[in-house]
Amino acid sequence: MTPAPPISRYPVPQLDDLPDDIRARILEVQEKAGFVPNVFVTLAHRPDEFRAFFAYHDALMLKEGGLTKAEREMIVVATSGANDCLYCIVAHGAILRIYAKNPLVADQVAVNYRKADITPRQKAMLAFAVKVAVDSVAIDDDDFAALREHGFGDEDVWDIGAIAAFFALSNRMANLIAMRPNDEFYTLGRVPKARG
Amino acid sequence: MTPAPPISRYPVPQLDDLPDDIRARILEVQEKAGFVPNVFVTLAHRPDEFRAFFAYHDALMLKEGGLTKAEREMIVVATSGANDCLYCIVAHGAILRIYAKNPLVADQVAVNYRKADITPRQKAMLAFAVKVAVDSVAIDDDDFAALREHGFGDEDVWDIGAIAAFFALSNRMANLIAMRPNDEFYTLGRVPKARG
Amino acid sequence: MTPAPPISRYPVPQLDDLPDDIRARILEVQEKAGFVPNVFVTLAHRPDEFRAFFAYHDALMLKEGGLTKAEREMIVVATSGANDCLYCIVAHGAILRIYAKNPLVADQVAVNYRKADITPRQKAMLAFAVKVAVDSVAIDDDDFAALREHGFGDEDVWDIGAIAAFFALSNRMANLIAMRPNDEFYTLGRVPKARG
Amino acid sequence: MTPAPPISRYPVPQLDDLPDDIRARILEVQEKAGFVPNVFVTLAHRPDEFRAFFAYHDALMLKEGGLTKAEREMIVVATSGANDCLYCIVAHGAILRIYAKNPLVADQVAVNYRKADITPRQKAMLAFAVKVAVDSVAIDDDDFAALREHGFGDEDVWDIGAIAAFFALSNRMANLIAMRPNDEFYTLGRVPKARG
Amino acid sequence: MTPAPPISRYPVPQLDDLPDDIRARILEVQEKAGFVPNVFVTLAHRPDEFRAFFAYHDALMLKEGGLTKAEREMIVVATSGANDCLYCIVAHGAILRIYAKNPLVADQVAVNYRKADITPRQKAMLAFAVKVAVDSVAIDDDDFAALREHGFGDEDVWDIGAIAAFFALSNRMANLIAMRPNDEFYTLGRVPKARG
Amino acid sequence: MTPAPPISRYPVPQLDDLPDDIRARILEVQEKAGFVPNVFVTLAHRPDEFRAFFAYHDALMLKEGGLTKAEREMIVVATSGANDCLYCIVAHGAILRIYAKNPLVADQVAVNYRKADITPRQKAMLAFAVKVAVDSVAIDDDDFAALREHGFGDEDVWDIGAIAAFFALSNRMANLIAMRPNDEFYTLGRVPKARG
Repeated sequence: MTPAPPISRYPVPQLDDLPDDIRARILEVQEKAGFVPNVFVTLAHRPDEFRAFFAYHDALMLKEGGLTKAEREMIVVATSGANDCLYCIVAHGAILRIYAKNPLVADQVAVNYRKADITPRQKAMLAFAVKVAVDSVAIDDDDFAALREHGFGDEDVWDIGAIAAFFALSNRMANLIAMRPNDEFYTLGRVPKARG
Repeated sequence: MTPAPPISRYPVPQLDDLPDDIRARILEVQEKAGFVPNVFVTLAHRPDEFRAFFAYHDALMLKEGGLTKAEREMIVVATSGANDCLYCIVAHGAILRIYAKNPLVADQVAVNYRKADITPRQKAMLAFAVKVAVDSVAIDDDDFAALREHGFGDEDVWDIGAIAAFFALSNRMANLIAMRPNDEFYTLGRVPKARG
Repeated sequence: MTPAPPISRYPVPQLDDLPDDIRARILEVQEKAGFVPNVFVTLAHRPDEFRAFFAYHDALMLKEGGLTKAEREMIVVATSGANDCLYCIVAHGAILRIYAKNPLVADQVAVNYRKADITPRQKAMLAFAVKVAVDSVAIDDDDFAALREHGFGDEDVWDIGAIAAFFALSNRMANLIAMRPNDEFYTLGRVPKARG
Repeated sequence: MTPAPPISRYPVPQLDDLPDDIRARILEVQEKAGFVPNVFVTLAHRPDEFRAFFAYHDALMLKEGGLTKAEREMIVVATSGANDCLYCIVAHGAILRIYAKNPLVADQVAVNYRKADITPRQKAMLAFAVKVAVDSVAIDDDDFAALREHGFGDEDVWDIGAIAAFFALSNRMANLIAMRPNDEFYTLGRVPKARG
Repeated sequence: MTPAPPISRYPVPQLDDLPDDIRARILEVQEKAGFVPNVFVTLAHRPDEFRAFFAYHDALMLKEGGLTKAEREMIVVATSGANDCLYCIVAHGAILRIYAKNPLVADQVAVNYRKADITPRQKAMLAFAVKVAVDSVAIDDDDFAALREHGFGDEDVWDIGAIAAFFALSNRMANLIAMRPNDEFYTLGRVPKARG
Repeated sequence: MTPAPPISRYPVPQLDDLPDDIRARILEVQEKAGFVPNVFVTLAHRPDEFRAFFAYHDALMLKEGGLTKAEREMIVVATSGANDCLYCIVAHGAILRIYAKNPLVADQVAVNYRKADITPRQKAMLAFAVKVAVDSVAIDDDDFAALREHGFGDEDVWDIGAIAAFFALSNRMANLIAMRPNDEFYTLGRVPKARG
């Protein structure tokens, strides 16, 4: 039997060795998810960066606003697909399946949002997000106008763009340290509740 | 006379309307720099994101480590050049000129680090940083090995990659909101010590 | 409840309306897989092309040779990932999971084969396949030599390249007609041996 | 005098060693063309793939439909130009010159169909074909609508896309095995009928 | 103290060793600018090419026509930015600042003309110039029409395109020989007349 | 019968209306070639640019040096292929066939120099030329070293790079004005000496 592959190129701290606030945050997510997503323990190698990373994440992903939680995860998955980031596609794909209560949408959005089972409004949202991810220099007034036609306000546009920008960072960190997705994420949310 | 162009697509808060901690941070930078860089007031439109952004920035740019301050700014300028981000090239170009005490290096690094007046070790550092910025999926062991040959340790490599990753976020935010560099940055540090 | 989305931009023939040989082939695959993969019924819109397509497929995927069945499917998944073809990633990803008895490898290979749980020999194989898929004009003797170093013979190289070439066709047909993967493929093979 | 360069990286079978059906096909084309195009003898190295290849070719190129034979060859030449495939540009360029009775059109279409001596309808056809060849993931309803405006029906669009898809395969096979165009193709059809 | 870095990969001739006409031209520019821009002495390594280069330059940059001198320099800076040519960005950036009497516009145009402090007409001009620089094969009637809508005549369009074409040559020569910008160019024109 | 298509988007001057030196040059080439290549009459629309263009051309293409005339034309054809310039591929392809006394080499080099019937030294020369044409910012010492290994001196490298740079200009001018190759060029040199 082969040993479990490493989850990071860098040392992964033990829970006991971490500052209290970081350990508390990790225990909280473990309580909620049933396991500790590797992004938490691998980034904890650098406590200050860990704190800033998750503060930024929470400011964008947990805030009130015009985007649903599923839509925010769609942005993560579509832009992580454009950046070829395995960790984010697999982990946030799982979260998207759960929020959207849709076992198919994550794989669709990761490969080609144009043909995913989502609304035209959501396709416009993802077109903008992917442009921020791969060609932000070319963003102009026409891009904002296209989103307004779908009913997005300026603060929604900030949300869309900022999530794409934050995961531009996240994707690069995951690729840099070869962050490995937990096995659990691959199957989470693949069978809709209908079953239960 | 034309009015001053806007410094953001979004509303820019007045100092008095900001939370105390953010206002204090802004006053502190104003005290030190003699003016308020636009990144502070434009991002303050979203206080929680502001706090996370600068906490992340400080964790990477102010920490101890194997990279000099000038080298960190080189990474910012080179990757912002690859991403065509006007704000970061101009603002961090100024900071780079000051830290490096070199009036030419910022423009050189922004356009083509291969021919800049920097050391072979610094060129290797920037080659890695630009790969993280534009093709992070292809980062592999050979890239780490190339940096080790120049004496960089693994923690230095994290620093290089993480700075490139953080400014992937920063560049996209600046392009998203059309953040305008302060006029002051264009000339800062262009005349070397001869001045004193 | 929304109606099932169409599985092709083009009319999808009824089994009863198809020529005998094509109907027989479809019934055979249905018997074996438990459902009819959409590639069969959507391409049956053009019987002559259907026959050639599956004759070609079988000549490459069912033949004897130096590549295992799982390795052939890895080539399909990696090159379909490079071409952003949803149908082939999802359908052949399922087949890869089953052949490799590995619930993770398909998603890994589709996004970034460099970090998949596969051997260095298989990574070299996929590097060649992806080059055939996206930059075949630049294939030269060095690429053949790199594969020989991993023990691949010239006939193996033909197999690798020809599978990449055939799915260059297949990916484009699927994208052209907006071929939709069967829902079943998304979950097939995701739970390992626990099953037995 | 230098020896004739090889026409394939792989062994080229002798006519006598080939299965009867393949030999018959080759003799038939030799009878008709006056020489044996190298695609026949080089691909005959793999008889099953040979049969599927030419069955597919014939299903697309010899069928009835809304596209003229010259238009089908234009698609081959334009997409092979986009893929930098020497064999297909030279061989199908010759066939295009003959079908179109135009000694200039093949070189024009191979380099830049936008300025070729063809109709606006044919330029729209080639724009679609090249998009299938190089960016099929982005094909959407607007692309179909653009062709309908030029009078193409949905079956014509399948033909255009399928020819582009088939030569995506063909181009990669030719580049893989370094298939060499017969010298004859370079000059065929270059002098218009005036000659006769 | 480090020695001054070389200004070219190739030998740089002494003024005394140059043909009279070339020496006269160089003395003339020195008289006017106060220093000799490195492009003159480095290209003088090849007198015949020198003469043709500057004859071409003068024919485009000194002629009468619908473009102002500042607009011609904008084209140089924007296309040199697209080509990552340090010499031309720095040297012509200085000239642009002086002609435009604007200390900011050169850095803006070099990075992202879409957000520079220029008119919509000038942005349309630069969009065309950059297309000539990086994708001239795709220039078509629509591109000419877009410029006519902004009041450009056909001869103006030739000027715009020809300047972009000439600096495609110039950028490649500068990159080929590693032409180094004079230190003076970095600061020229950065402080507006307010000073005087 | 359709009228002859225009040879330029711009007015084409009559010989009688041209300055004496330009008319003389055109008559000279007509005397030698038997027809007037369209590049002469179309560029004559701008006499000063015409003179500089051909002075530059002659300085590079007619000078003494380590490259044969055929090799210089190979550089033109390979880089014009990379730039998709119909005029230069067709016109200089003809000249290359004549100088090389080889009816095949021009089409080979235009599509894929890696597989052309040329020497390894010539392939190295074209790899460098194409890099100057499409990615000159990345030219570094290793590229010079690679050419030296094939026996090229530094002045030869200047020649190779300068020809690539000059045709970067030429290709863009031809694409800008939609310069049409003379029909004669398509067939010139296609039948080898056997004829004589």
